[in-house]
Amino acid sequence: MAQSKIVICGVGLIGGSFALALKKSALALRRNLQVVGMGRTRAPLEQAQQLGVIDAIATDWASALDGADLVLLGMPVGQMPAVMSALAPHLQPHTIVTDGGSTKSDVVAAARAALGNKIGQFVPGHPIAGAEKSGVAAAQSDLYVDKRVVLTPLPENSAGDLKAVRTVWELCGAKVSQLAPQEHDRVFAAVSHLPHLLAFALVHDFAQRPNSDQLFGFAAGGFRDFTRIASSHPEMWRDICIANRQALLQELDAYMVELMRTRVLLAGADAAGLETLFLTARARRDAWLDSLLPPGE
Amino acid sequence: MAQSKIVICGVGLIGGSFALALKKSALALRRNLQVVGMGRTRAPLEQAQQLGVIDAIATDWASALDGADLVLLGMPVGQMPAVMSALAPHLQPHTIVTDGGSTKSDVVAAARAALGNKIGQFVPGHPIAGAEKSGVAAAQSDLYVDKRVVLTPLPENSAGDLKAVRTVWELCGAKVSQLAPQEHDRVFAAVSHLPHLLAFALVHDFAQRPNSDQLFGFAAGGFRDFTRIASSHPEMWRDICIANRQALLQELDAYMVELMRTRVLLAGADAAGLETLFLTARARRDAWLDSLLPPGE
Repeated sequence: MAQSKIVICGVGLIGGSFALALKKSALALRRNLQVVGMGRTRAPLEQAQQLGVIDAIATDWASALDGADLVLLGMPVGQMPAVMSALAPHLQPHTIVTDGGSTKSDVVAAARAALGNKIGQFVPGHPIAGAEKSGVAAAQSDLYVDKRVVLTPLPENSAGDLKAVRTVWELCGAKVSQLAPQEHDRVFAAVSHLPHLLAFALVHDFAQRPNSDQLFGFAAGGFRDFTRIASSHPEMWRDICIANRQALLQELDAYMVELMRTRVLLAGADAAGLETLFLTARARRDAWLDSLLPPGE
Repeated sequence: MAQSKIVICGVGLIGGSFALALKKSALALRRNLQVVGMGRTRAPLEQAQQLGVIDAIATDWASALDGADLVLLGMPVGQMPAVMSALAPHLQPHTIVTDGGSTKSDVVAAARAALGNKIGQFVPGHPIAGAEKSGVAAAQSDLYVDKRVVLTPLPENSAGDLKAVRTVWELCGAKVSQLAPQEHDRVFAAVSHLPHLLAFALVHDFAQRPNSDQLFGFAAGGFRDFTRIASSHPEMWRDICIANRQALLQELDAYMVELMRTRVLLAGADAAGLETLFLTARARRDAWLDSLLPPGE
């Protein structure tokens, strides 16, 4: 039986969980799979190998890509251009490259610049399974079960390659959907990047106060959940915010307009206006939560 | 053995959980306790009685307060002035009144207006155990275990009355601390009222968009936790925001300044500046979470 070879570059939470999920699936389907971890330094890859996340280690792209069927780029988006430039010369015609980056327009631009006429082999993707945890030790085989993965295919992608990438994510248990790269970035600027920025900013604001200890001393469960995403990985979120700053600036400005409207209600002691705002928000959020429930619950 | 009589006016999550906790404690201590639910309409009180939260029902203050040792006012803060005016004429000299309101300056002002020279009998309090749930059906005897209760005593309170209120909350399992009423309101404007307003505003903003369904369709766990408090009770939060609007406006303005500073970093693609902001926030939040762990964990 032929062996599939999958290369993970950036064996952290995203790449490591992808590897574990595919290994579990391969075992169940009795398929022969080799997962190779690729990186510049051996120490983190040796940890990943000891944890059973990868089978082999490569520290150069020539050997990593030799006979590879699929490459997943799992590093922060700021590192993608350099990584793509390094892998491009060694990319063989039958190998598909995909990624787990949280922004897509910049990743696609980097891929076009680095891969040139091999761009059709790159199928961009974004698994919506972030957590404030990071690192390979946090990887788990069921991270993607019932999570969404958004693919943002390019005109140059073949139907076969797109289907192959969709299939591996479905083997991980994910629900796969598609958006255009720019549409993806606009949507995630709103529902993900903005909330992260807002949570970081609130904690940062309180951290600077002379009575910071008093404030945190009385913070409770509401504050804890509101700011959970402010414990996210600073380098990763720096990269995301910079990469998607145009869409994120638009969302930030829209939100500040909303806050100014809310401020008018508050300053005018407009009880009815505030109650309508709160009722609308609660109803929309509760309808959304209901829509997330599996059928029958 | 003498029977203690406690009156709960506003038998919802806060009042109902207080009643259940004290009943449990009285059972353990073999003390004789009667909990009376007071309200204008019988139906919700009958539900509370059926659930075992209260022992008896009163619909007028004269009978409710007859021989009462302690009264807890558990309604939204907007209703406090009317309730206090109604109970004041029937308040006997040995009865202590306390409350569970989320704001304190306005409640103290209402109490001074309504109670006059009986103001010393009112010991203001705020249990920090909100949840997005509300209503007596959500009440539970362990809601206050290891939660904070902030008392904001008045110069007119006797040491004995203050100690008595502290003791009943400790019997509920709470950790009791003290702040001046205005200091309480400034602290909670920051760590509680502002995050609620921000979460409501974000969901409201997205709910108004033409692509609202698409946005919520891609919202995930980070958004869910960030907006959990936007499922809070609209009427209760309307009252809190209006009552504490001076402190809340100051916090909202400080936050908008922080957002403008963050916007400058983002618009200038200042990666180092953003990373410093994110690192500072994550470190402060993680230090706070560590401080919440019980010793030994």
